[in-house]
Amino acid sequence: MIYGALEAGGTKMVLSTGNENNELLERVSIPTETPDITIPRMTEWFAAHGISSLGIGTFGLVDLNPASDTYGWITSTPKFAWRNCPLMPLMQEKLGVPVRIDTDVNAAALAEYRLGAARGMHSCLYVTVGTGIGGGLIIGDRLVHGMMHPEAGHMLLRSASGDPSPDGICPYHKGCAEGLASGPAIEKRWGIPARDLPEDHIAWAIVADYIAQMCVNAVCTVSPEIIILGGGVMHQRHLFPLIRKRVRELLNDYICVPQITKKIDEYIVSPGLGDDSGAIGALLLAIDAVHG
Amino acid sequence: MIYGALEAGGTKMVLSTGNENNELLERVSIPTETPDITIPRMTEWFAAHGISSLGIGTFGLVDLNPASDTYGWITSTPKFAWRNCPLMPLMQEKLGVPVRIDTDVNAAALAEYRLGAARGMHSCLYVTVGTGIGGGLIIGDRLVHGMMHPEAGHMLLRSASGDPSPDGICPYHKGCAEGLASGPAIEKRWGIPARDLPEDHIAWAIVADYIAQMCVNAVCTVSPEIIILGGGVMHQRHLFPLIRKRVRELLNDYICVPQITKKIDEYIVSPGLGDDSGAIGALLLAIDAVHG
Repeated sequence: MIYGALEAGGTKMVLSTGNENNELLERVSIPTETPDITIPRMTEWFAAHGISSLGIGTFGLVDLNPASDTYGWITSTPKFAWRNCPLMPLMQEKLGVPVRIDTDVNAAALAEYRLGAARGMHSCLYVTVGTGIGGGLIIGDRLVHGMMHPEAGHMLLRSASGDPSPDGICPYHKGCAEGLASGPAIEKRWGIPARDLPEDHIAWAIVADYIAQMCVNAVCTVSPEIIILGGGVMHQRHLFPLIRKRVRELLNDYICVPQITKKIDEYIVSPGLGDDSGAIGALLLAIDAVHG
Repeated sequence: MIYGALEAGGTKMVLSTGNENNELLERVSIPTETPDITIPRMTEWFAAHGISSLGIGTFGLVDLNPASDTYGWITSTPKFAWRNCPLMPLMQEKLGVPVRIDTDVNAAALAEYRLGAARGMHSCLYVTVGTGIGGGLIIGDRLVHGMMHPEAGHMLLRSASGDPSPDGICPYHKGCAEGLASGPAIEKRWGIPARDLPEDHIAWAIVADYIAQMCVNAVCTVSPEIIILGGGVMHQRHLFPLIRKRVRELLNDYICVPQITKKIDEYIVSPGLGDDSGAIGALLLAIDAVHG
């Protein structure tokens, strides 16, 4: 059987197929235009591949309550054309196969939990730091939804010392993580894309401080067994030691567990599945839709 | 059968008995001195009441990993005499009955989830704001432990406008919730115990801002179905409307769910069990130790 995996993003849609061994097969990427244009292009591609089910990891906010009238809809989003878009029902209707949906970061967390860096654990936090910031969460071997779903990128953070724009660029929140440490926030502040900033630029200490604060607040709130940092900004590998050091400074020996005090290199890590966590997570949702 | 319930605090130990209908029967309170003095006093009292099992909701940090050599020990705490104290093993050895232990706030969260404000839900956050600040968490119908256990009081928060001491008084962390909004933090800042500050004092707007930030960060991190605020500081009932208003301002219509936009009075609430959440939670742990 062939399964479909959709990573629905505000900029692009990444469509993949995969098999029951959790292996990705084909992949295409198309720009995210309006639902009128983009949804038919996606259903055509998946239909042509004869998929048995579809898993969607999506940008959001998204309604994940199966009892809700708007289950599987994108609800509020800065991408105006996608606001109140019944993404999952439209895909399901057109394809006629089971569809399962979650946030993009929850899909990635699921993949890391089952097959990646968090394998064998019962909890993990997956954070993506890229165009936006988001967090997916597994607790007690299950994805966390709760009232809605986590939106960890909008956690409020303390101003970092030396930050020239300590309120950040989020149109909703002064001082949230996404407004302070996402790729666009970095570029806006220093006028250079994050990837072009030299490693010794002050930017990195400031960005590391904010991501470290996110980690600290997650440790204090839910105490995950591992924190996985993915996304484009985290391709700057030199950020990892800065973040780990800052987490230890901020926690200041208060949380005395070996994961923090001795083995933080194994506690705050890059994704075990590299850049494929999201796609494999969507594939797992598809497989679960049939067999789960 | 009679069950024992211990609320172990840094200042006092509250010992209760209860029955299988989750009703508390007798209660005494003794000062927390050194383990040498206090533990025998507690085991004597419980033994004299012929308890069948004991539930402990404790201050901490506490080791809650059943596979650990120090399971049930208090590990690090500012109460020096209790550092590395095998609280649960000592009680169990002396009493010869099953003992179950969790954090004080997890016990309270459990009670609110089963019998109080969060009944019928699958998740809840219980926050106590008193001598310290702590958070207990139920996700997916289970208490959250994870790497260690939540320590939500040490979440880092943005400085509130007008705060004369925006770094707070926590000896470990600049700008954590407990250092900014606990009873002692309020008293230290304004020189008057919280309960004696008039309702129109600037203190309350500042304290409400910090507790609101905790709520916002919890919503973003784990999206609990309800947030329950207990503890001595929350006896100032006028704080609730201030906190709810500030949560809405801070979230700024980003999290568009009815719990926030329409029914926040039912989302951020006082404990359904009043000041008994902790004791009833410890009783539930005791009952679970036999029947769970």
